[in-house]
Amino acid sequence: MTSLTLYAAKYLVKRALDLDDDTPDLTTPDEDLEDSNPVENEIFSSWALFILLFLLSSALWSSYFLQQRKIKAVHETVLSIFCGMFVGLIIRMSPGHYIQDAVKFNPGYFFNILLPPIILNSGYELHQANFFRNIGSILTFAIPGTFISALVVGIILYIWTKLGLDGIKLEFVDALAVGATLSATDPVTILSIFNAYKVDPKLYTIIFGESLLNDAISIVMFETCQKFHGHPVHFSSFFEGIGLFLMTFTISTIIGFLIGIFVALILKHSHIRRYPQIETCLILLFAYESYFFSNGAHMSGIVSLLFCGITLKHYAYFNMSRRTQIATKYVFQLLAQLSENFIFIYLGLSLFTEVELVFKPLLIIITFASICVARYSAVFPLSNFLNFLFRTRFEKFSGMNANSIPDEISHSYQMMIFWAGLRGAVGVALAMGFQGEAKWTLLATVLVVVVLTVILFGGTTASMLEILGIKVGCVDETADSDDEFEIEAPRIALSNSTNTPVMGHRKNQSQSTHYKDVVQHRNHSSSSVSSHPDLLDAFDDGELLSNDIDDLITAPTPSLPNHNRSRSDGGAGVLGAFLSAEEHAKWFTRFDEEVLKPVLLDTLPKNRDGEV
Amino acid sequence: MTSLTLYAAKYLVKRALDLDDDTPDLTTPDEDLEDSNPVENEIFSSWALFILLFLLSSALWSSYFLQQRKIKAVHETVLSIFCGMFVGLIIRMSPGHYIQDAVKFNPGYFFNILLPPIILNSGYELHQANFFRNIGSILTFAIPGTFISALVVGIILYIWTKLGLDGIKLEFVDALAVGATLSATDPVTILSIFNAYKVDPKLYTIIFGESLLNDAISIVMFETCQKFHGHPVHFSSFFEGIGLFLMTFTISTIIGFLIGIFVALILKHSHIRRYPQIETCLILLFAYESYFFSNGAHMSGIVSLLFCGITLKHYAYFNMSRRTQIATKYVFQLLAQLSENFIFIYLGLSLFTEVELVFKPLLIIITFASICVARYSAVFPLSNFLNFLFRTRFEKFSGMNANSIPDEISHSYQMMIFWAGLRGAVGVALAMGFQGEAKWTLLATVLVVVVLTVILFGGTTASMLEILGIKVGCVDETADSDDEFEIEAPRIALSNSTNTPVMGHRKNQSQSTHYKDVVQHRNHSSSSVSSHPDLLDAFDDGELLSNDIDDLITAPTPSLPNHNRSRSDGGAGVLGAFLSAEEHAKWFTRFDEEVLKPVLLDTLPKNRDGEV
Repeated sequence: MTSLTLYAAKYLVKRALDLDDDTPDLTTPDEDLEDSNPVENEIFSSWALFILLFLLSSALWSSYFLQQRKIKAVHETVLSIFCGMFVGLIIRMSPGHYIQDAVKFNPGYFFNILLPPIILNSGYELHQANFFRNIGSILTFAIPGTFISALVVGIILYIWTKLGLDGIKLEFVDALAVGATLSATDPVTILSIFNAYKVDPKLYTIIFGESLLNDAISIVMFETCQKFHGHPVHFSSFFEGIGLFLMTFTISTIIGFLIGIFVALILKHSHIRRYPQIETCLILLFAYESYFFSNGAHMSGIVSLLFCGITLKHYAYFNMSRRTQIATKYVFQLLAQLSENFIFIYLGLSLFTEVELVFKPLLIIITFASICVARYSAVFPLSNFLNFLFRTRFEKFSGMNANSIPDEISHSYQMMIFWAGLRGAVGVALAMGFQGEAKWTLLATVLVVVVLTVILFGGTTASMLEILGIKVGCVDETADSDDEFEIEAPRIALSNSTNTPVMGHRKNQSQSTHYKDVVQHRNHSSSSVSSHPDLLDAFDDGELLSNDIDDLITAPTPSLPNHNRSRSDGGAGVLGAFLSAEEHAKWFTRFDEEVLKPVLLDTLPKNRDGEV
Repeated sequence: MTSLTLYAAKYLVKRALDLDDDTPDLTTPDEDLEDSNPVENEIFSSWALFILLFLLSSALWSSYFLQQRKIKAVHETVLSIFCGMFVGLIIRMSPGHYIQDAVKFNPGYFFNILLPPIILNSGYELHQANFFRNIGSILTFAIPGTFISALVVGIILYIWTKLGLDGIKLEFVDALAVGATLSATDPVTILSIFNAYKVDPKLYTIIFGESLLNDAISIVMFETCQKFHGHPVHFSSFFEGIGLFLMTFTISTIIGFLIGIFVALILKHSHIRRYPQIETCLILLFAYESYFFSNGAHMSGIVSLLFCGITLKHYAYFNMSRRTQIATKYVFQLLAQLSENFIFIYLGLSLFTEVELVFKPLLIIITFASICVARYSAVFPLSNFLNFLFRTRFEKFSGMNANSIPDEISHSYQMMIFWAGLRGAVGVALAMGFQGEAKWTLLATVLVVVVLTVILFGGTTASMLEILGIKVGCVDETADSDDEFEIEAPRIALSNSTNTPVMGHRKNQSQSTHYKDVVQHRNHSSSSVSSHPDLLDAFDDGELLSNDIDDLITAPTPSLPNHNRSRSDGGAGVLGAFLSAEEHAKWFTRFDEEVLKPVLLDTLPKNRDGEV
């Protein structure tokens, strides 16, 4: 068995990472085609893929057991990395260099196959109310935060290399490029931990949003630095870079938004919901197209995809057949989960299989230290800045004394945000693009540092949560109720989405009107009740049509209570209320309610604006 | 815009078909890595993928419009082929050979990425009652049928080439290999048409089962022929081949079955249903592993995956959390749909982009004629054979007069089975493996013939259905009710699959006991009622707990009525009854009921045996 495994392991990633090894080599198609016997190739790639899948499933199993046994110290992603390292070791041991050459971390795969599902799912799963409530903090940490961190790392590395102890020379732009790659925090590990612990939505959202956006930002920064590689850098180029970045960010957002709108309109004005299978495929395809189009147009695919996901959930979601609503949600989750695990296996793997890597311990230590410093000097000043803004802003609104106002971001939150700054695969993928002779050293450094951060910070996050006494176990009802809602609604939705579209509208209306009823009902008894009581009430009333049953069961666990809850989570009590009130007075929400939704939605689930 | 498209089209499939173009070339990793700037590569592959996705979505759109406008003449897959041909034409026009070299039909992709989802979904969606009821006919058409057709095509081609009009020389084994590639009928097009028309389940099942199995069989035959390529062929090798084939088929089936069982046991004995996301991933992974393991072990992955899918649906399905039941179903469907469309786009593409192809019109015509002859000489004799068997068998059971017995497979069915014999992508994928100097001619021939069959037969199937007066519009309630069931059950299932596993068992029991009630209830009023009446009854009874409501709503649209219906669909009236009765007396069903299900299932949904 082990010999089999070894035999297989040899072909493992070689074949797996280039399935199309049998596509004719461009220079000499013929000779290559000679041996392109699909049967043979199939055998090889079969073993490769078999073992990859085996690694994946074992990673998932381990994560299951960890969750089962409530083990906090070790985390799934860490295990995945070790899984990968183990196999990487086997490959490294096995004779012959060609496998090791073949299993190099492959940016093409990463950016085109592994990354999109994660981003899309993030956007789709995003708790929009919280996200937009904390958008200020998120953008602050994401944009200036990433700039600062990249700058700090860049400067430290530049100085260090100037000392010449490691005998490597770096231009400043290259040092800055390294800084950029190491400023992309990882949206995967932390969040899966936070999900497991149901951490306070506010903190969750801030870290989540930041880690999503700063991937995009560090990518753009990296590209900008690469443009200046080898050219003399003027002071103006700094602003040039910033301008370039802002433009990219804005346009990407718009692309994503527009495609989301486009889908919503298509769904509204076509009868495609009668063919849910096609509908589901199309939505997935459109989302991906936003990513690839944006990348192709030299914009940031991540940003586009993220906002496309958000827009889809905010508008298009309501025009989908119920089957598609469920399907998209589950499909995105599945793909994301698989990619996440695969990425970390992949990282661990390449640690051993990148033969050209040049490891310089000193440099690695310095870099690791520098990213900690950078993260520190990004998080804390910005948090204080935010707190200051918040305080003044609040004073202006209510004449309260500044000192009596709690912080927007308490110190424990700041510490957690700092701790959550572990780096992810995006950095490594970018680092593949380094140029110049220092390339292999830098790549090795980035790779090791990333793995270190994941293992150290990722492994200790859970304990850190306890040490900092951060509020955990905040049951995010919306998620559950959303699922519940999705699972339970669809009898009518389905039947008419497949059979009679007319009924579809009737049902939708009855549903949306029903929301109002429910919510009024809730407002009287503002406790977060499940829908069973209604059911029973209804039965007492005696006037009961199957349709009503559907509606009653269709009722999501109450929207408003969640809303209040999530508000009281984000922002402290009265502040939260005041803030979210102010929030909802904002022009966008009004515009959204009065213009966009009527135009885009088939029916108006009025009372769910914040939630959906 | 067009210029953009052209620009993109150039990179289109080059990058798309080998994403990892930037993995270092094995011989000279360094120079290759020099230009492995992820950013650049990303741009290229982004455009490639964007256009591929665009093609996919346009194919889906067209299929939507076709279904919308009830257009029968043209079919989705035909459109996909033309889509591909169009782009292929653009690429062919565009200067430079390297793109054309790069977009060659790639067996690696086909076998490892595109084919598995389709097979898996087929197995999972399979209406098992019908399948096993007609297993005899299916195997007859699949195994001897494919042999005959391959043999006939082989002989005709051999004789033709011996005449030497085209100046190509073929050994007999090579001719036979061509025959094998052209004996794999396509499971996609016909079935999507049949689904759209809700064709009589019996005919559907036979054609479906045949087209699934004969892919596997022709693959095995092809491999066997390849083994004999260049070697002297003795008469013994014929039996050697047959023996080899039967062994492969059996072992593959067992592999698939065992892995399915394994999953069922894991699900039963672990609490993984509490983590539905992981559960879903694992089930997908295991299914794929059965495919790759089987391929890796020189067995037939298709057969394994097919039976793995069937076993999963038959056993594991009942141990899954409801969320996973829904998720797996939708995910498999989605993946299958995407692959199907992509395959046909791909076929059309390679028609223009395979530069080395040598088209010999005469040979193509002869081959096309020969596959028709082959199909004819396979379908009709075997059908008559089946009818004969059926008649004698029936006479033995009931002393009726043989002449008064309707055919098992009526003449119109025979014609339809003949017509459904259009060839698919499997053939082309296999044809890539041809050896010898005639290779390019044969590949071209196979490619053209396949596309021709899809366009001709596929395009005319709908009209053929009418001409032959085949029963259409047989509403397959099981499918709907199954969906309905899946969508409506899960309140409790979900809540406990995520929160309290103990409740899970309680619910399962209550559910399974509930099935009995329902079915008894049904038996009294054997009309196919929806679950609303029960609901209302229950309310009259007044004794109503939310739990009961769940159970009541959990009730699938009645199992037995469907059962009866599908029986009366398959088999003619009394015959059907008699047959299926005999069917259910069979040892396997008993073994299944009395041994396997108790061992494998968490709860016994007793009255659904045939359905699930």
